[in-house]
Amino acid sequence: MASSEGNKLWGGRFVGNTDPIMEKFNASIAYDQRMWEADIKGSKAYVKALQKAGLVTQNEMQQILTGLDKVFDEWSKGEFKIKPGDEDIHTANERRLKEFIGDPAGKLHTGRSRNDQVATDMRLWLRDAIAALKGLALQLIGTMVERAAAEIDILCPGYTHMQRAQPIRWSHWILSHAVALSRDVERLEDIRRRVNVMPLGSGAIAGNPFNIDRELLRQELNFDSISINSMDATGQRDFVAEFLFWGSMCLTHLSKMAEDLILFSTKEFSFITLSDAYSTGSSLMPQKKNADSLELIRSKAGRVFGRVNQIAMEGALSPDMLATDLAYHLVRKGMPFREAHSCAGKAVYIAESKNIHLSKLTVEDLQTVSPLFDKDVSSVWDYIKSVEQYSAPGGTARSSVTAQIQHFRTWLHAQKQ
Amino acid sequence: MASSEGNKLWGGRFVGNTDPIMEKFNASIAYDQRMWEADIKGSKAYVKALQKAGLVTQNEMQQILTGLDKVFDEWSKGEFKIKPGDEDIHTANERRLKEFIGDPAGKLHTGRSRNDQVATDMRLWLRDAIAALKGLALQLIGTMVERAAAEIDILCPGYTHMQRAQPIRWSHWILSHAVALSRDVERLEDIRRRVNVMPLGSGAIAGNPFNIDRELLRQELNFDSISINSMDATGQRDFVAEFLFWGSMCLTHLSKMAEDLILFSTKEFSFITLSDAYSTGSSLMPQKKNADSLELIRSKAGRVFGRVNQIAMEGALSPDMLATDLAYHLVRKGMPFREAHSCAGKAVYIAESKNIHLSKLTVEDLQTVSPLFDKDVSSVWDYIKSVEQYSAPGGTARSSVTAQIQHFRTWLHAQKQ
Amino acid sequence: MASSEGNKLWGGRFVGNTDPIMEKFNASIAYDQRMWEADIKGSKAYVKALQKAGLVTQNEMQQILTGLDKVFDEWSKGEFKIKPGDEDIHTANERRLKEFIGDPAGKLHTGRSRNDQVATDMRLWLRDAIAALKGLALQLIGTMVERAAAEIDILCPGYTHMQRAQPIRWSHWILSHAVALSRDVERLEDIRRRVNVMPLGSGAIAGNPFNIDRELLRQELNFDSISINSMDATGQRDFVAEFLFWGSMCLTHLSKMAEDLILFSTKEFSFITLSDAYSTGSSLMPQKKNADSLELIRSKAGRVFGRVNQIAMEGALSPDMLATDLAYHLVRKGMPFREAHSCAGKAVYIAESKNIHLSKLTVEDLQTVSPLFDKDVSSVWDYIKSVEQYSAPGGTARSSVTAQIQHFRTWLHAQKQ
Amino acid sequence: MASSEGNKLWGGRFVGNTDPIMEKFNASIAYDQRMWEADIKGSKAYVKALQKAGLVTQNEMQQILTGLDKVFDEWSKGEFKIKPGDEDIHTANERRLKEFIGDPAGKLHTGRSRNDQVATDMRLWLRDAIAALKGLALQLIGTMVERAAAEIDILCPGYTHMQRAQPIRWSHWILSHAVALSRDVERLEDIRRRVNVMPLGSGAIAGNPFNIDRELLRQELNFDSISINSMDATGQRDFVAEFLFWGSMCLTHLSKMAEDLILFSTKEFSFITLSDAYSTGSSLMPQKKNADSLELIRSKAGRVFGRVNQIAMEGALSPDMLATDLAYHLVRKGMPFREAHSCAGKAVYIAESKNIHLSKLTVEDLQTVSPLFDKDVSSVWDYIKSVEQYSAPGGTARSSVTAQIQHFRTWLHAQKQ
Repeated sequence: MASSEGNKLWGGRFVGNTDPIMEKFNASIAYDQRMWEADIKGSKAYVKALQKAGLVTQNEMQQILTGLDKVFDEWSKGEFKIKPGDEDIHTANERRLKEFIGDPAGKLHTGRSRNDQVATDMRLWLRDAIAALKGLALQLIGTMVERAAAEIDILCPGYTHMQRAQPIRWSHWILSHAVALSRDVERLEDIRRRVNVMPLGSGAIAGNPFNIDRELLRQELNFDSISINSMDATGQRDFVAEFLFWGSMCLTHLSKMAEDLILFSTKEFSFITLSDAYSTGSSLMPQKKNADSLELIRSKAGRVFGRVNQIAMEGALSPDMLATDLAYHLVRKGMPFREAHSCAGKAVYIAESKNIHLSKLTVEDLQTVSPLFDKDVSSVWDYIKSVEQYSAPGGTARSSVTAQIQHFRTWLHAQKQ
Repeated sequence: MASSEGNKLWGGRFVGNTDPIMEKFNASIAYDQRMWEADIKGSKAYVKALQKAGLVTQNEMQQILTGLDKVFDEWSKGEFKIKPGDEDIHTANERRLKEFIGDPAGKLHTGRSRNDQVATDMRLWLRDAIAALKGLALQLIGTMVERAAAEIDILCPGYTHMQRAQPIRWSHWILSHAVALSRDVERLEDIRRRVNVMPLGSGAIAGNPFNIDRELLRQELNFDSISINSMDATGQRDFVAEFLFWGSMCLTHLSKMAEDLILFSTKEFSFITLSDAYSTGSSLMPQKKNADSLELIRSKAGRVFGRVNQIAMEGALSPDMLATDLAYHLVRKGMPFREAHSCAGKAVYIAESKNIHLSKLTVEDLQTVSPLFDKDVSSVWDYIKSVEQYSAPGGTARSSVTAQIQHFRTWLHAQKQ
Repeated sequence: MASSEGNKLWGGRFVGNTDPIMEKFNASIAYDQRMWEADIKGSKAYVKALQKAGLVTQNEMQQILTGLDKVFDEWSKGEFKIKPGDEDIHTANERRLKEFIGDPAGKLHTGRSRNDQVATDMRLWLRDAIAALKGLALQLIGTMVERAAAEIDILCPGYTHMQRAQPIRWSHWILSHAVALSRDVERLEDIRRRVNVMPLGSGAIAGNPFNIDRELLRQELNFDSISINSMDATGQRDFVAEFLFWGSMCLTHLSKMAEDLILFSTKEFSFITLSDAYSTGSSLMPQKKNADSLELIRSKAGRVFGRVNQIAMEGALSPDMLATDLAYHLVRKGMPFREAHSCAGKAVYIAESKNIHLSKLTVEDLQTVSPLFDKDVSSVWDYIKSVEQYSAPGGTARSSVTAQIQHFRTWLHAQKQ
Repeated sequence: MASSEGNKLWGGRFVGNTDPIMEKFNASIAYDQRMWEADIKGSKAYVKALQKAGLVTQNEMQQILTGLDKVFDEWSKGEFKIKPGDEDIHTANERRLKEFIGDPAGKLHTGRSRNDQVATDMRLWLRDAIAALKGLALQLIGTMVERAAAEIDILCPGYTHMQRAQPIRWSHWILSHAVALSRDVERLEDIRRRVNVMPLGSGAIAGNPFNIDRELLRQELNFDSISINSMDATGQRDFVAEFLFWGSMCLTHLSKMAEDLILFSTKEFSFITLSDAYSTGSSLMPQKKNADSLELIRSKAGRVFGRVNQIAMEGALSPDMLATDLAYHLVRKGMPFREAHSCAGKAVYIAESKNIHLSKLTVEDLQTVSPLFDKDVSSVWDYIKSVEQYSAPGGTARSSVTAQIQHFRTWLHAQKQ
């Protein structure tokens, strides 16, 4: 006679025991137990639909609901004991339910499949994770925006290819990262819409044959909509791939910011000093203080930096970073940009040959490059003036950065509704 | 004296020539030339903004616009000649413009950077690609929906783990893939919003210093909005990563469908026969006809299949696929599902032992498993009845599949507005 | 005054406490505790080198060795308790050692760095893993070879593009997978050579300043050689990347084989039946028996298959698979292969048009394709004869497959030396 | 009657034409034409084996060889014209051969399959690529070793976590990268053994039925050995995966080195200056000089750096980098390392509090940390002495680095045999 295979939900047609290696190989409980709450929530909704469809009585429903609450209690107190044979979270919960209430537990799975359950559980679980991540991201952006507001008057070099490029406001650098993170929040919202679709009621692949009320299930579980096709609902995991992509993207953004900060905290740059509370040392070299923590940029980012070293930052500004402005100076006197760029490049070359700063070239020196140069060239050598000319929207001028800060305050306010 | 380095847009400060290996290593023209049209479009908008800001005269603007039209003409006729030193599409176009109109060409780059340009070009190019892909995807979905409508009465086995699971409608299988593709269309729309943001006016990193009217640029180039921060605008490529992810996802969906079709076209399954027009042969084995083309499922999907073999499909339905129904039969008589599942499993085992079909078990045989079995068990062995019970939304019953078809017709209509 | 930061190996220069989030974020003990044995082994060797260099006394060395044995005992009995502050396995072991023996524990780290330790631990750990994997792979190959020997007379279709291609011996299919796995064993041996290089004695980056005898360390730890450069030794992890690639490659091979077996176990193919002991069922569909386990192809592969269904396999051979032979028949009569291929293709077309098997075409039918056809064409329709012609080394003829089996028996024997 | 489908090698059994989209979709000629030389070489060997087996006459063989030489000539002169219908390089070459010599061309494919050909072509092509890459890698390593020899007396900071860690020899840094590359050369050699195995003679899957002499083929094509199983030979591409992994690994090594160099060439570090010949500029900012080329570290690495800035490097050494030595100073006076590490950490803290260099602490200051400090502590503040203590094999002492250089000279000599 066919054996019963203990707790297994599928033993009837099988003869002899499963190889223990197979048992271990096949089990997913180590991974999927984290969905225990979603699994119980789904079952509580499902038994209500079973009762409405006349497949369990009012009384049986009540027993199942009470039993599921007991299972919930055990999990939330950390007292649930996983037993051999609990191959996944669905089996474990139903096994425990049966120990609590006996036979009626066997009716809970009517018309439902584990394909149904796992798809439902994952979506419920992910919906919660998305809400939590969105909250943390908003908190971090908020901190960054207020930091940018407070430090709007600090200038620093902007880099391209890790070479000094143009003077910018330090706040402009901060907000460039806030913009990327705000897109991540918007992406998360797009994903949430596709995650929050209810598969329950799809069975294994063909659908549900028992007049189950899927609209009732949807309301109970607070889903936005109902899946359109049962094979797609149980077979597709693209919402998971989409979320994993989101995670990679968001971490890329955080890592990009951390990379800049690690560079800025080297002895050679000395722009920022990391608080001891977020640094680690070396077991060998007593003087070492490592910025290990910079990946840990989350809601506490604002407190991570002990202070921002304004003097070092502004000390790193050098006149050659104003070579663009020197070219623009000629443009404003009517020279085509390409020619002006070449003239400014030549000036850089002369200064390097003389081993002096670009700003120390005399008017005579400059006139060997172009007769358009005059005494008024001295007005070029002013970092604040340089920064202030970038007043087009999105630029690094004070007015533009202030507008960005205001944009974010409004956006954050709207997100928190 | 510093050399001019020919066409290079940055030669002024450099002495001596670039190593030819470096030149080749650094050039991106082989890749980015495909953005020639976007690059010219961007420059035409930019010169208008330069004129409004008083940096070029009305006359110079006109010369530049006319010159750019000539460059456009050469590209569209396939007559544009890339020269040594054209390190990228921006350099190539500006070099050619200068050959056409001389000095005024040198003013076009005022306040603009190649960082600006490449970000703008990529977004314009990708916006067009997205529109084209959306159109093709809708065409394919449309074909699939009409095919599902036409063949709604064909039954076939549904498989899980490649083993026969439950009878379903063939149209249900078709629509399960249409649902996945319709999500891809929606994702594409989400991405388009983030792609269609204008970076132009961001300079290298600090912004644009010349009172350029970014709103005018936006309108000229038909962007939805303007980038918020110039460092983010020129430094981030997350819109590209997002699109690449989309491509992987969509291809996964097409490949999943093709994989099923390849299986269905094996001699052993024989569900479908591929048209000779989309098959290939072997250089060695004269009889071979390979389904190489099944990755080529696009707008012509409907014509790819010579015919769908209804007889083979329905021949593959076997009574053991109704074992779930046998269990449901007992459930309807009041037995808890778990127990009913076990009883049906035992019946499968007995039939296998006797080497007969499940439907050939006598009532007496079945009663050894459960006394609830009676003559009315014969009503179970009906594939159409089996399929028809899955009438909950999303299921494989005729009414449900018809509702899915109607859903898609409405959705497609809305997408095409 | 600088705080001591409890157990931390680097606290001297730090003021105030580490943020608890940072503590958790920074800890690797959850991952690296599996290297406990390697870590202790490395420390036991190192203290001997310290003693030889005069940095610990004979007596201190003895205390440290005895203490490390006690730590070892706790781990092997599962009694080691990880405490807050044990940020990694090195810290945990040294903390426990100090609890056992007091001050001398503080001398163990002289001239050594955790960079040193982790590189050494990983290499010791991986060396053991490689030995275990090699053993399992050889066991599997051995089983496959003997299975191939036992079933050498079973014929089956060989497939390309999942379409029937040519008749082959079933053993030929088995051995094609054994060949791939034998290359994996050889790759593992190549990797082992690069893993088994000792980094200990490299310090953080600069090397070891205390006249430590690295040759003594190498002998104690049974490494093949000593790392050449201390920065490379502590900074590179390419041996890990190489091993991970190996894992992907080997799993690709196993997965390819499993994929074929899954296909062969479908109802439609019915070539093999999986033992119940390695199958799983469905919680919904009572008849289901899934080949979930086929990824579990390891040392027990031979017992996984209940039996191989020779009848179904040979039943799947069909005359069109001999179309190549029909072409070769003409080649042997002097026709160029290209022409012969085309003639055989036409014969396939005629048979399909008439809806008969290729072998049922009359000589007259065939002569419409080529006058070279004669009564002797009947000799073509013999599967065994077809298979036997592939007698060149590596082919599917009995003699060739037997030679492959002999090759593997010799190779396995050599591997086990 | 079945159509001939022009040049196609498999047209006989097909009716009607292939869809032109399918044709384009299926073609691989754009990729595989680079294997033209390997393809011709393989065919020349194969026709000799056909002649030996009596399948072509001496005269036919001569015609085919002469014709293949003509095809070779066209390719090598860049005059070969790909025609519509040339779906891959095999088809293209055979089509052209037929145009040159007519009917005998049709015999070349006897017993051979395109599966055979493509596997053979790829292995021949890759074998050449491996030889070229090995040569380039050895040239680069050679340059690095000689550079290390020439600059052995320059000291610089060694970094961990991008923070200054310990003084090292600049040559030690160079050699740390040479070691990694030398492992890549050894890996390449391992791969070559697995690539240089001949698949020719495997047919589509079953083998070769015509008594072809595979040993003759092997000698003609200079392969090391013959494939063991025909299905494995035509079906596996693990040698390609292995080579691609090699490429990723080697590029990771080059990129790691380039990353360090990019950092060292920032204004803030100023350790090295890149030659103008390998730098690029900005189209906007006239002063910019970018180290774009640092990925271009190949055989010319030695000439890439204009000069190495010894003064900046040694200027970056700071007394806190000798904190390890301060601890070792106490160790040598008998203090356990853990305690010494803590004392040195406290000294760092005091120096930071007083805002002076560690070396400026008085003996009295130091004695507040430990009474073991005495006047002889002054001997610690010597960078060269510090570096020289790392004399264990692999360390940064002059003797050890010299030994590394000697190791590489010997190794390079052996590699070039």
